[in-house]
Amino acid sequence: MKEALLYEGKAKKVYQAKDKPGQLILDYKNDATAFNGEKKETFAGKGRLNNEISALIFPRLHEKGIETHFIERLSETEQLVHQTEIIPIEVVVRNLATGNLTKRLGIEEKTVFNPPIVELFYKDDELGDPLINDQHALLLSSVTPSELQEIKEKALEINKQLSDLFAAINVKLVDFKLEFGRLASDCIVLADEVSPDTCRLWDITTHEKLDKDVFRQGTGDLIEGYEEILKRLEAIS
Amino acid sequence: MKEALLYEGKAKKVYQAKDKPGQLILDYKNDATAFNGEKKETFAGKGRLNNEISALIFPRLHEKGIETHFIERLSETEQLVHQTEIIPIEVVVRNLATGNLTKRLGIEEKTVFNPPIVELFYKDDELGDPLINDQHALLLSSVTPSELQEIKEKALEINKQLSDLFAAINVKLVDFKLEFGRLASDCIVLADEVSPDTCRLWDITTHEKLDKDVFRQGTGDLIEGYEEILKRLEAIS
Repeated sequence: MKEALLYEGKAKKVYQAKDKPGQLILDYKNDATAFNGEKKETFAGKGRLNNEISALIFPRLHEKGIETHFIERLSETEQLVHQTEIIPIEVVVRNLATGNLTKRLGIEEKTVFNPPIVELFYKDDELGDPLINDQHALLLSSVTPSELQEIKEKALEINKQLSDLFAAINVKLVDFKLEFGRLASDCIVLADEVSPDTCRLWDITTHEKLDKDVFRQGTGDLIEGYEEILKRLEAIS
Repeated sequence: MKEALLYEGKAKKVYQAKDKPGQLILDYKNDATAFNGEKKETFAGKGRLNNEISALIFPRLHEKGIETHFIERLSETEQLVHQTEIIPIEVVVRNLATGNLTKRLGIEEKTVFNPPIVELFYKDDELGDPLINDQHALLLSSVTPSELQEIKEKALEINKQLSDLFAAINVKLVDFKLEFGRLASDCIVLADEVSPDTCRLWDITTHEKLDKDVFRQGTGDLIEGYEEILKRLEAIS
């Protein structure tokens, strides 16, 4: 199925799909990184879990009318997606204050954001993915002002749909990071992944963290939380 | 003229004006600070120069219909202003890329911004005055969405007027920082100062820096540049 390796990221390898022009295969890796790559570890099974979780979530978003790059699950660690030109803007949506935001702006932990906060970061490892404003985003990427508006609105709509989905499995969607890509048709769709690597997910009853913060903070076994998320998502699928 | 010292900042002391409720006296200091207060030095004459320069610039803005807190020059280092509640947002306008922006976003030195870039920073020394977006600004200050829009539009209008004023003395306004304050009437007006402490000012012919970067970068005598700015402004006043 796979042809040339096009790109190896921190969490995924990206291949050209054989005989399918315009389609890519994402192969999810077991590597976990944090703090802009400073902390790194490998967890057997993480690639499979994130692939399976993403492959359950993307179709849920399609059902709600949200376009993504996802086509289908191919194997335990692989999924087929439409090729996009990734827009170098990471879009973060925050429902509750935690993580670097609280330190950066002196905002109290667990402050509720209503409406949710949307933050843009310039996707550039060398620069440490700095926070940017709308004007910086227009300067540093190919998006037009109306596309940027559209991206922010989509991020909020995705937040609504994902919050509902996670609430249904007794999980609070605290915050998450999205990436968008431009299809050959020029349309901008959700790309990358939606997984416990990119979302902060807290059990609503126990407040247990079921996401990559377990690795960032070194407080336990990352895999257990990811398995719990997959198990609960499968139960409602 | 002066009553109680209300506040001592890095560059100015603020006093209640005697028998003038709602009015303050700003006393400009000789201290220069940079890099969030890490670098500090005193320059005899700086307070006078910034007071005189600000006292020439504010009336020019009034002539152009821009409201400020400035009432009148009182002495070599003092000016009378309307009391305002300072909005804790520093508004930076950039016409040319230089300084921390180029490092932060990897933008080439002297890139021309057309339209100019407006950046907001949360005025908080302990946090190091972090960059914020519009949503953060609404969360961290008392301004409404329409007031924030108004502040950004005013900053761009001030940029136009100041750019013209400095061009008339053969100086390029590269970028600058503004602070706004809320009057008792609830109106938001330009506050703080407009001086070579808060503006990057380059001689158009020689590209010589006539602002605080001379101190930040330790490349010469700060006072000479400030004197040059004052001399040229006086020549057209």
